[in-house]
Amino acid sequence: MSIIDLFTQDSVALSERVSRGMQAFYTEKDDVAEFDQRQLLDKLSSLSIPEQPLSQDDYMDMVDETILPQCSHLASPTYLGHMTSPLPHFIPEIGRLTQTLNQNMVKMETSRGLTLLERQLLKIIHQQVYSFEESFYTPYLRDFSQTVGIFTSGGTMANITALWVAVKKARTHSPQVKKWMIVGSELMHYSFDKAAALLGVELVRLPVDEHNRLNLESLRQQCNACQQKDIGVACIVAIAGTTDFGSVDAIDQIASLAQDRHIHLHVDAAWGGAFMLSKDNRALLNHIEQADTITIDGHKQMLMPIGTGMLFFKNPIDSQVIRHTAPYAVRETSLDQGRFTIEGTRPANMLYLHACLHLIGKQGYNELFNKAMENIRCMARLIGDNPAFELLSAPTINILGYRYIPERYRGKTLSPQDNVVINDFNQRLQKIQRANGKSFVSRSKRKFANYDEQELVFLRVVILSPLVAEEHIRFVLQDQFTIAQELEKTID
Amino acid sequence: MSIIDLFTQDSVALSERVSRGMQAFYTEKDDVAEFDQRQLLDKLSSLSIPEQPLSQDDYMDMVDETILPQCSHLASPTYLGHMTSPLPHFIPEIGRLTQTLNQNMVKMETSRGLTLLERQLLKIIHQQVYSFEESFYTPYLRDFSQTVGIFTSGGTMANITALWVAVKKARTHSPQVKKWMIVGSELMHYSFDKAAALLGVELVRLPVDEHNRLNLESLRQQCNACQQKDIGVACIVAIAGTTDFGSVDAIDQIASLAQDRHIHLHVDAAWGGAFMLSKDNRALLNHIEQADTITIDGHKQMLMPIGTGMLFFKNPIDSQVIRHTAPYAVRETSLDQGRFTIEGTRPANMLYLHACLHLIGKQGYNELFNKAMENIRCMARLIGDNPAFELLSAPTINILGYRYIPERYRGKTLSPQDNVVINDFNQRLQKIQRANGKSFVSRSKRKFANYDEQELVFLRVVILSPLVAEEHIRFVLQDQFTIAQELEKTID
Repeated sequence: MSIIDLFTQDSVALSERVSRGMQAFYTEKDDVAEFDQRQLLDKLSSLSIPEQPLSQDDYMDMVDETILPQCSHLASPTYLGHMTSPLPHFIPEIGRLTQTLNQNMVKMETSRGLTLLERQLLKIIHQQVYSFEESFYTPYLRDFSQTVGIFTSGGTMANITALWVAVKKARTHSPQVKKWMIVGSELMHYSFDKAAALLGVELVRLPVDEHNRLNLESLRQQCNACQQKDIGVACIVAIAGTTDFGSVDAIDQIASLAQDRHIHLHVDAAWGGAFMLSKDNRALLNHIEQADTITIDGHKQMLMPIGTGMLFFKNPIDSQVIRHTAPYAVRETSLDQGRFTIEGTRPANMLYLHACLHLIGKQGYNELFNKAMENIRCMARLIGDNPAFELLSAPTINILGYRYIPERYRGKTLSPQDNVVINDFNQRLQKIQRANGKSFVSRSKRKFANYDEQELVFLRVVILSPLVAEEHIRFVLQDQFTIAQELEKTID
Repeated sequence: MSIIDLFTQDSVALSERVSRGMQAFYTEKDDVAEFDQRQLLDKLSSLSIPEQPLSQDDYMDMVDETILPQCSHLASPTYLGHMTSPLPHFIPEIGRLTQTLNQNMVKMETSRGLTLLERQLLKIIHQQVYSFEESFYTPYLRDFSQTVGIFTSGGTMANITALWVAVKKARTHSPQVKKWMIVGSELMHYSFDKAAALLGVELVRLPVDEHNRLNLESLRQQCNACQQKDIGVACIVAIAGTTDFGSVDAIDQIASLAQDRHIHLHVDAAWGGAFMLSKDNRALLNHIEQADTITIDGHKQMLMPIGTGMLFFKNPIDSQVIRHTAPYAVRETSLDQGRFTIEGTRPANMLYLHACLHLIGKQGYNELFNKAMENIRCMARLIGDNPAFELLSAPTINILGYRYIPERYRGKTLSPQDNVVINDFNQRLQKIQRANGKSFVSRSKRKFANYDEQELVFLRVVILSPLVAEEHIRFVLQDQFTIAQELEKTID
């Protein structure tokens, strides 16, 4: 066989094998065999590359045996702790097309008209968020010197880019200031730690209020303290959908404060931003249009595959802050979208957005988020009604936090020592549940205002998939209850 | 229709439509209609999102009409200027599987055994590059506190990560040094400008020798000058396959210098690194194993789709420099590969590497690069034999540079003024060729030693696709020659 055959063969037979494998992954029971790490590591210890290529069939046998059984069942309706949802059936097909075209969005030479399509899609989402009149966008149809937004590999890169813009603007505007800070709540995503470390600025994590929103008084004090010490605040970060609780910061009040002090306001709506597409739920994000920059992840709640972050600029002129040039690549005067991104070569992942907008439609997204909110409220109700559980954070959007309370601790005031025991209990509970593989919720640890800021381990639920129904939610809680019954015997 | 249908429908009909579209993209003539930007912009000006979803068929009609005709024919064998190659037929099928599984490599909870598979694949390529004994890798089978490498969204992120590691190490080791630089040749990729800007260090671009390799004397002088001024050199960058010329820096001598001065050596082998997989051609990368970190792009010459950069650490302990933590996400003590990456959520793109290694094999890669070198040498010969062209850089690896010389300038010593005219001529030539769409080479502008460091516009050829044959190369040159005949009439 020659290397040329690998380019010219048709892929019908392989396509069928892949389809069978995909079906097997879905139709086989949702729970997974306990994960035997040692055994798997032994299987995966060889470092040799085959001299001769395998046949397609032999390779797919290998995939069936070695790869598929090792995957996490993220699509199961009893896995309620992941931010990665099952995807509509059309996504992998659009993926096949995208990879065949293999366009590179860094420049127009390698993406041609898709660069224009990408700019259109960015404007569409920009308008959903900022609600500008159509006339706002008219100049950017033919003026390629700025952009209303960029696509990135994910929310992390979008957040890093936003902070880069904010810090660069601040340093340019006030070159005499030697030290710069970025401030936000303690619930900021860890991508902000990375951004601050890269940019050489300090990240300040301020406390939250009892609803897990940035404490406004702390924000005011922090800004005042910085001013007194000649430290600049380059950016305030507000969160629209914290990863731990789904809480949404008080964007309106934070924006007033930022505007008064001429500080860049970035809203991290990686998780919550997609709610803009739902007419019944978009009020949850009220005032988001006051942000200078906004991060939204397509692969979180817009049902796109992993790798589709977005960053939007309220004022497109801010996109010019990151323009750069290279003789062989992105010319300053070109129409290349790569002038605005930290990343270089980049796949045409906006094609997934194009497909989603047309094949889901606003009506579909509205139904999606209504169903998600219905499900999360149902779960909050079931937890509230069950004395074995304590609801620790009611859902603002489709995330909630709770924990199991062992029998002897129910109906009493819990001491810090009690909470230490309950923390340990819940940690063990979640680990067993995860290892059993029948259902899943994730686990986190945070300070809680109503427990004197003590750190509590809690179980974290995220529901997006419309395939989740009340029966699945009941199953997850019952699964935990059963595990907890066994664990109850181990505490004295 | 309900949103649930989009998850439960089978995709057979859609799959057929996508296949037809893909086939049309390939079988229709390779050249593209002239690009009517104004007309396309008018088509793409609407900002509305459909309320009701489109039917699959209506959507695919839209794709056929609006998207496919706008794409760049990167896979055409007469397009010889792109670094994005056509992909083997199996890639989009593996893509379909990868997107169905939708695993998130940031943590083990969302990727399970694939995290272990990813670590194995990184070791396999690490060993190809560094040639360590098997025993070197044994500890890292069960020690998850470090990694031999990471996957990134591209070479840019790999380079930025490498420089972050280098700068952090340098700052930690010599906290008294206030100013840091990164040095390399003027042919460094523009991702290094981004990295330096992000990290707040200065990037110094040094001259190249007549073979487009970093000038060693300039490097030595620069290091000495820094030492005298108490400026630290955090990293020296060597390039294995410059994007403009395909030249490979003298890694051995640069490594000696870096070692003597305890400076981190990073090799950017984004383009050239894949030659390691070819026994007949790997000598081109001799001494690469002396690098502290190495960038290789899977989507450049390993035939993987866009989005598969890699960074390797000679000493895995260097990976710990970037470890970080977040309570809900990547725990410090976890096995999560996300502890080592700037990016967070990340697709299982290493599955493409797994497929390529098994379905191409070392023999396939060897054939691929032999064919590429044969093709590029053939083109260099045809250019050398034709008085209408001047070969400006002979191919080290599969990239070359040349230009058209208008008739009146042939066979004489060219003055700087002559070169200005010839620059303009070649720029217009390339633009017309690109707009005609029958064939493609790219264009760049660089200083050339044999023209007293004058900046010359040149035509740049990259050949990887094994579907390219001598007839295609002849066609490209003939196409240019025909365009040039017309252009000749316009100069006086």
